[in-house]
Amino acid sequence: MTPATPLKQITLIGVGLIGGSFVLDLKRKGLVEKVTGIDINSENLERALERKVIDEAFTGIGAESVGEADLVVIATPVATLPAVCTALAPVLNSRTLVTDAGSTKQSAIAAFRKYLPNHLPRCIAAHPIAGSDRSGALAAQFGLFQDKKLIVCPHGQEHSDGLEQVESLWQAVGAQTYRMPAAEHDAIFAAVSHLPHMLAYAYVHQIADHSNGETYFNFAASGFRDFTRIASSHPAIWTDICMANKNSLLDLLEGQQRQLADLHKLLEEGDAVALYRYFAEAKQARDNWQASQ
Amino acid sequence: MTPATPLKQITLIGVGLIGGSFVLDLKRKGLVEKVTGIDINSENLERALERKVIDEAFTGIGAESVGEADLVVIATPVATLPAVCTALAPVLNSRTLVTDAGSTKQSAIAAFRKYLPNHLPRCIAAHPIAGSDRSGALAAQFGLFQDKKLIVCPHGQEHSDGLEQVESLWQAVGAQTYRMPAAEHDAIFAAVSHLPHMLAYAYVHQIADHSNGETYFNFAASGFRDFTRIASSHPAIWTDICMANKNSLLDLLEGQQRQLADLHKLLEEGDAVALYRYFAEAKQARDNWQASQ
Repeated sequence: MTPATPLKQITLIGVGLIGGSFVLDLKRKGLVEKVTGIDINSENLERALERKVIDEAFTGIGAESVGEADLVVIATPVATLPAVCTALAPVLNSRTLVTDAGSTKQSAIAAFRKYLPNHLPRCIAAHPIAGSDRSGALAAQFGLFQDKKLIVCPHGQEHSDGLEQVESLWQAVGAQTYRMPAAEHDAIFAAVSHLPHMLAYAYVHQIADHSNGETYFNFAASGFRDFTRIASSHPAIWTDICMANKNSLLDLLEGQQRQLADLHKLLEEGDAVALYRYFAEAKQARDNWQASQ
Repeated sequence: MTPATPLKQITLIGVGLIGGSFVLDLKRKGLVEKVTGIDINSENLERALERKVIDEAFTGIGAESVGEADLVVIATPVATLPAVCTALAPVLNSRTLVTDAGSTKQSAIAAFRKYLPNHLPRCIAAHPIAGSDRSGALAAQFGLFQDKKLIVCPHGQEHSDGLEQVESLWQAVGAQTYRMPAAEHDAIFAAVSHLPHMLAYAYVHQIADHSNGETYFNFAASGFRDFTRIASSHPAIWTDICMANKNSLLDLLEGQQRQLADLHKLLEEGDAVALYRYFAEAKQARDNWQASQ
């Protein structure tokens, strides 16, 4: 389903990789007439204006920047949602649709419920599955969401037309949309996204902590490069995500510690047969995943 | 230094990605007249003959395949070195230079000392730092070692002319050569290569073990793809490497477990400031590494 008529105004709060790329494609496809950008970083806003990611810029949330919006897209780090919703509450037009693009959805819905209770039927929690270790307005790019997944997590009180409108906009920029409960979403992305980020940071931290770390880095090659790419991700964004998805991650970290204890035992006992089986099982699972892509 | 005259014969034991790519470039540069391939997998040998990686093929080590070689390159999984050296001992010509390409160097030197004691002055332990998750003769490619590092680990009893000849051949295929003690080599590569492989296998194993693993994999995206690429590496090769470098890896696994315990504690206590600092330190170290490449 393609949106019937273009939106007159989208207000994008947080003009970075995700939100910026979303509005770039919507503008290219003629699905929005004007994009208003709000960001606390005025230099970032300058870059976004120069690159025509946004058409006007504000450094704060107010009636002028939000009041006329058909859609407000919140694309700030997930921990800012309570403050953003608090600021939106007095200036939101009752017809304005609000959606977010954060990586944790229980926390987003909790913020909508608590800080925008009267607006809840117009609040849609969404998560585009596209990322990069790059960030900021300069990282915004056309086509970022083509053939990527977009998850909508209904909280149960939203109006279905708003839900469908958000889905149709993401479909218009190339995403395949899915619906699932927020708790299921958070468990899945803790496992396939948030945990690997923590593990990549943990590994790089270990090498950097080592007394010979400088020498070690000097001999790191392509395996290291790929394994650690996500450790170059924005630390504030990932701190927020990990805190917001803390319970899933605590369990998963314990699970990973058990895997490492198993490997330690196999190595210590010199059990090459079992170690081979362990590696072969993992390789098979990873090859199956690759083949499905 | 470029080798003065082409070698008449190289015998390559283990016709896969590393050894195959090495001889492909040496042939292209006219630095060897004939490459004799030895592999236990006859189908792999067929592929290597078809692609002219090798000029003749044998499935075993014998006087016919080894006796006339100027250089024997052992490029089999590291655990096979004792058996390979045992088989080489009675058929090696005293003038033949022997080198290996394995990822662990203390184990290689131990095998040379134990199984080729009389030939030790002609045995050179070397490690090209170039890999891939691909393996076998079909993975052999031109230019694999261009601008890659090659470590030679002198054991102290080799003749310097052989050491230099091995280095010059690797330099001829584009590698930058380094010399360092085998123990230092093994500590470095445990940290920057062997440990990340174990961690990637461990992470994929954890997800595959999970009761919702199938669903989880379905939503894995680019961060997952890069973080787990090395979990598609050959499990037998990596079992051997991990076993051969067991002591370094046991320490490093314990170090990683301590990092995960630290992260678990920060999450559990909700210490976002310290978690941010941890992530930011890791990102800085990773960005510094990337900038140095």
